[in-house]
Amino acid sequence: MTDLYPSRREAAPRILPRLDPVVHSSWDERAPITRAQAEQFDRDGYLVLDNVFSAEEVAALQTSAAKLLADPAALEDETVITEPGGREVRSIFKIHQQSGTMARLAADDRLAGVARFLLGDDVYVHQSRLNYKPGFVGKEFYWHSDFETWHVEDGMPQMRALSMSILLAPNTVLNGPLMIIPGSHRKYLTCVGETPEDHYRSSLKKQEYGVPDEDSLAELAAEHGIVAPTGNAGTVIIFDCNAMHGSNGNITPFPRANAFIVYNAVSNRLVSPYGPEAPRPEFIAARKHVSVLQRPEVTLLEAAS
Amino acid sequence: MTDLYPSRREAAPRILPRLDPVVHSSWDERAPITRAQAEQFDRDGYLVLDNVFSAEEVAALQTSAAKLLADPAALEDETVITEPGGREVRSIFKIHQQSGTMARLAADDRLAGVARFLLGDDVYVHQSRLNYKPGFVGKEFYWHSDFETWHVEDGMPQMRALSMSILLAPNTVLNGPLMIIPGSHRKYLTCVGETPEDHYRSSLKKQEYGVPDEDSLAELAAEHGIVAPTGNAGTVIIFDCNAMHGSNGNITPFPRANAFIVYNAVSNRLVSPYGPEAPRPEFIAARKHVSVLQRPEVTLLEAAS
Repeated sequence: MTDLYPSRREAAPRILPRLDPVVHSSWDERAPITRAQAEQFDRDGYLVLDNVFSAEEVAALQTSAAKLLADPAALEDETVITEPGGREVRSIFKIHQQSGTMARLAADDRLAGVARFLLGDDVYVHQSRLNYKPGFVGKEFYWHSDFETWHVEDGMPQMRALSMSILLAPNTVLNGPLMIIPGSHRKYLTCVGETPEDHYRSSLKKQEYGVPDEDSLAELAAEHGIVAPTGNAGTVIIFDCNAMHGSNGNITPFPRANAFIVYNAVSNRLVSPYGPEAPRPEFIAARKHVSVLQRPEVTLLEAAS
Repeated sequence: MTDLYPSRREAAPRILPRLDPVVHSSWDERAPITRAQAEQFDRDGYLVLDNVFSAEEVAALQTSAAKLLADPAALEDETVITEPGGREVRSIFKIHQQSGTMARLAADDRLAGVARFLLGDDVYVHQSRLNYKPGFVGKEFYWHSDFETWHVEDGMPQMRALSMSILLAPNTVLNGPLMIIPGSHRKYLTCVGETPEDHYRSSLKKQEYGVPDEDSLAELAAEHGIVAPTGNAGTVIIFDCNAMHGSNGNITPFPRANAFIVYNAVSNRLVSPYGPEAPRPEFIAARKHVSVLQRPEVTLLEAAS
């Protein structure tokens, strides 16, 4: 396959143009979001949908998340990631295959329907996880474009994927919220340094390859600024696969918990990685077991009960 | 001396009452702050004075700070503290004795005059430093009450001191700003664990003793909330010596630089430490070389030129 977005190959970083659309459908009245929302996503690379889920649904999702966190031994071993240098759980991967409620959440039309519209295609779950930034000791996630990693390490061919963060606890400006450089999704910042084989285990705790350089980050931030969308539990933050984002640590007593679902267009299924030979495992990047999401037959509350 | 605020002695933390006033003067029209400001400081333990310094003065202070940062080798060795695990400068201590401009800043009536009023006494500089939280790699300062450490390790007898942070760069909610639990200054949270001798070197990078426990912090934060006063360069944030505070790390490209001056009442001079036998060195806690601040004879701009 032609590599439209080469990275980790040259000695110096470069800023390349994005070759793919951001919104892959034309807006009309049947769209699941407003025209203004579609335009904002196109321009800024992110969108906040307030209070998508009812209080009852939020409670059901929180119960489901608490169950996952309470008994990590019941989960597939490698899907549980702890804080660097600590034992606190930082992420649990593949939640849509380890919890019926989370599976139902991923298929929810309020999420998958918006993903279908923005990606202009049927969609499947490329990756899912519960991100839990504990109070007091939560560590930062450094700046990165998800797409850079998904392209180089997983073989995602084009920019036709997006992430949804479903807030399960208040995300405030002080408890290490997602920070995005709006507009950064329209540029492709290449990274320096070849990727060693099998480095994904440590990278899930702390990224060491595919790390953008400080000068380019400073340039992007100076041009576009930095935003930190916040919200209460039940709010959904959508961001483009190539949006430059990260988050600070969290010393407040207030944990930040989010369910995180990555939707990819079925036309954008993974090929061989563009970087290292061996692809990362299935729980990080769905390659073989890909099911096109169908509109669900039961409600979220029914699935959770 | 009777120890009014014992800490690091018992196996469990306790929340003791504050035995000292917060505002040590009665307000009248001659006060350098408004009645509402005095009341806010009394109630919340902090106060923000916007745009205290003119653009020219801010520029002069930034130049002075840049000079200190540019040539750490010219400074007293032990006054330069680097980031944990890094080489970036995190703090430079004793700036009021290593820079004429910073000496003049400390004596400025807009700062020292307010300190005299709030502390109801003549004042001197107990500690001064330049706090520089670099972009990308700035690490957190965990929660602490300054007074707890100053009392146990330095022998500050009572709560009659305050800190002023003079902002030399924008402090936003995202670049690791000072976070305070308002109202926490009215309680004294004791810490657990005896203090080893001579541990101050590592504690300036990362505190390991005098660390409040998570349960008490969660209780304080649940009761009082957390605020992060922000502002542009030239703004001054004043906070009580016993206010529970901390700050998150900073992965943004925007460094956070502040001059930091601690004023103590002359009637509250240091005695022998209440914890370890050996007091910490003079650059962290003025003990022998104490000069009562006098109203300056030259302007800040004259001193800087």
